[in-house]
Amino acid sequence: MKIISGGVCAAKGFTANGVHCGIRKNRTKKDLALIFSEVQANAAAVYTTNLVKGAPLLVTKAHLENGKAQAVICNSGNANTCNADGVEIAEKMSAMAASALGIAADDIVVASTGVIGQPLNLEPIAAGIEPLKAGLSKDGGDAAAEGIMTTDTVKKEIAVEFELGGKTCRIGGIAKGSGMIHPNMATMLVFITTDAAISPDMLKKALSTDIADTFNMVSVDGDTSTNDMVTVLANGLSENPEITHEGEQFATFMKALNTVTVYLCRMIAGDGEGATKLLECKVSGAKDTATAKTVAKSIICSSLLKAAMFGADANWGRILCAIGYSGADVDVSKVFVSFKSAKGSIAVCENGAGIDFSEEKAKEILLEKEIEIIVSVGDGNGDATAWGCDLTYDYVKINGDYRT
Amino acid sequence: MKIISGGVCAAKGFTANGVHCGIRKNRTKKDLALIFSEVQANAAAVYTTNLVKGAPLLVTKAHLENGKAQAVICNSGNANTCNADGVEIAEKMSAMAASALGIAADDIVVASTGVIGQPLNLEPIAAGIEPLKAGLSKDGGDAAAEGIMTTDTVKKEIAVEFELGGKTCRIGGIAKGSGMIHPNMATMLVFITTDAAISPDMLKKALSTDIADTFNMVSVDGDTSTNDMVTVLANGLSENPEITHEGEQFATFMKALNTVTVYLCRMIAGDGEGATKLLECKVSGAKDTATAKTVAKSIICSSLLKAAMFGADANWGRILCAIGYSGADVDVSKVFVSFKSAKGSIAVCENGAGIDFSEEKAKEILLEKEIEIIVSVGDGNGDATAWGCDLTYDYVKINGDYRT
Repeated sequence: MKIISGGVCAAKGFTANGVHCGIRKNRTKKDLALIFSEVQANAAAVYTTNLVKGAPLLVTKAHLENGKAQAVICNSGNANTCNADGVEIAEKMSAMAASALGIAADDIVVASTGVIGQPLNLEPIAAGIEPLKAGLSKDGGDAAAEGIMTTDTVKKEIAVEFELGGKTCRIGGIAKGSGMIHPNMATMLVFITTDAAISPDMLKKALSTDIADTFNMVSVDGDTSTNDMVTVLANGLSENPEITHEGEQFATFMKALNTVTVYLCRMIAGDGEGATKLLECKVSGAKDTATAKTVAKSIICSSLLKAAMFGADANWGRILCAIGYSGADVDVSKVFVSFKSAKGSIAVCENGAGIDFSEEKAKEILLEKEIEIIVSVGDGNGDATAWGCDLTYDYVKINGDYRT
Repeated sequence: MKIISGGVCAAKGFTANGVHCGIRKNRTKKDLALIFSEVQANAAAVYTTNLVKGAPLLVTKAHLENGKAQAVICNSGNANTCNADGVEIAEKMSAMAASALGIAADDIVVASTGVIGQPLNLEPIAAGIEPLKAGLSKDGGDAAAEGIMTTDTVKKEIAVEFELGGKTCRIGGIAKGSGMIHPNMATMLVFITTDAAISPDMLKKALSTDIADTFNMVSVDGDTSTNDMVTVLANGLSENPEITHEGEQFATFMKALNTVTVYLCRMIAGDGEGATKLLECKVSGAKDTATAKTVAKSIICSSLLKAAMFGADANWGRILCAIGYSGADVDVSKVFVSFKSAKGSIAVCENGAGIDFSEEKAKEILLEKEIEIIVSVGDGNGDATAWGCDLTYDYVKINGDYRT
């Protein structure tokens, strides 16, 4: 498997584009993105668990009931959520895209991201859809990645190439959002495309299995968005024998998918609102995987630990505390903690109690941009990884007055 | 019932004091507090649910097994938590206080608050205990309240006077902590004293019932401390007929206790680390009380809403989002939201969707120091109140480098 360029257009038969149509006031920010497959693709999606769901999610869910889709349309700047006529608007947006592309409306994945509770004006989208379509190209992955950004500071895309049944396949994706985990603005969105042939059922299984270890293990601020959505379109143009059951081929596809999703997870966490550092928490030795996940997420979600990481302060007591209140069944007297980065690693806690360590060395390690928090529990073989970021002045600044 | 002065010394037979003994480097900060009842009192306590528990909590729990206590000793600056010999140290600290006061060691409530995972040096306490005891007085409530502060910016105390069985009773309390909810430093501690006569069982019942609606409904940052503890000592010196069962007398006691605890809750939330505002979230119309509590706490814990309140931004979509991911069974299409403060009130959401409102008026309301977030759900008669604070630059500053 190798990493290639092209993002969401790397797979055969996919083109994309992004434009500024006028939903966002700032004309230098793209606010409308389109991804198109030249043939109908098998499609799967997962959605936020928030009871308050963005209207586009409801429409997309209905469209994907048959496991098929051919295009993705997504605007930024407005979430189309908590609006009385949201579903109607999402359907109209979907119909506009379908009409421009000459495909069925129920082959459209529709998504929106931005402020909650403000009516989404369709006029800019109506005006933007033709130039958006006209500009579809194999080089359009970047523009599409930009079109879905809100508070993101970098565009997030990746693609990989791999072999399936003697055929070269590609899988690529773009993402937006500084967490899974931004209710009013960021709202994580991920669009993945592949030319691998895989049945709708197996595609759904691959996605559901993967997100449990990837996107569901990312946290920026603990706020689960109303508009989170991850979709994957598989158009089969690489002509590998269609994957219809578990086995070696499915495992290969899963591995490629996981390479794409873990990369995007790390990008999302590292670009968390206001973040200066990516935190990767690796938990091992837990009773089981579920316990390891609970512990890893609790650590990564602790505001106090996040603030300590911003200050490059090896305040490991906050890690013990977060393990203790996580609700996980852990023998806290058998916990080991160390910090690791490009500058080396340092152990700070053994058997649940502090040990002597060099504060200078710890500071040097924690001043890096990517920090591993390594936690070992003495209860079994469960392990898990979670991704997060530090809590900074800029997080407060960005969210103190997002709407204006 | 009327509010009186004296705090933890307002009740008959209680004296207190606070000194600087040297655990904290800053000599202007008191770091050791003592509360003493001239007779043995009935006592009850509740403790953190964190699996990682401060050593003093384990010792106090053992001491209170017989439902009796006569004094409280508490240091700030060091939590005596995650230390290999923590329990031994807490027992020695307890024994020192008992010896100075001439009472049994198991009549001591011992508590510590401060950094986790650093050995607690007993020398300053050994040196400070005699002056601490010598200075015990009816005017010492203030000094004791100061002795337990860490990152608190104001001391937190209150007392009320009320009638029980024809006798005048008093109940007072002091608290520290900017939440229930500060693992490494603040760690909420509350010490309540009363001269009412009430049996150990009923005292325990009163406390457990009360904290479910008071301290357990406070959040500053979602981090449940390892050292949280609320204790109440009732020495019976007001000579009311001892309360031994539920009924009018118990209800009167509960009401007085609740006045004290709600006041302290509001003080703790309003003095949350870095906070500029107290947030009080009132939820009504939920299916039941448990649902209302879940909703109120989810709202008060949302980092995004907390940041919006700091910016006086009426970003109600974040409230809907927090309701949606709370896990509570709520019909989100029937949610009403309004903001209220000394400057008036304003409705911002009806039936789960936005309504037109004056942003200027909303800003004026939200610029106040105490904000009510009023949420009405259309599912039943359950209501609840939760207290929190805004998320500010200073929270990040305080916690980015707490240990140095």
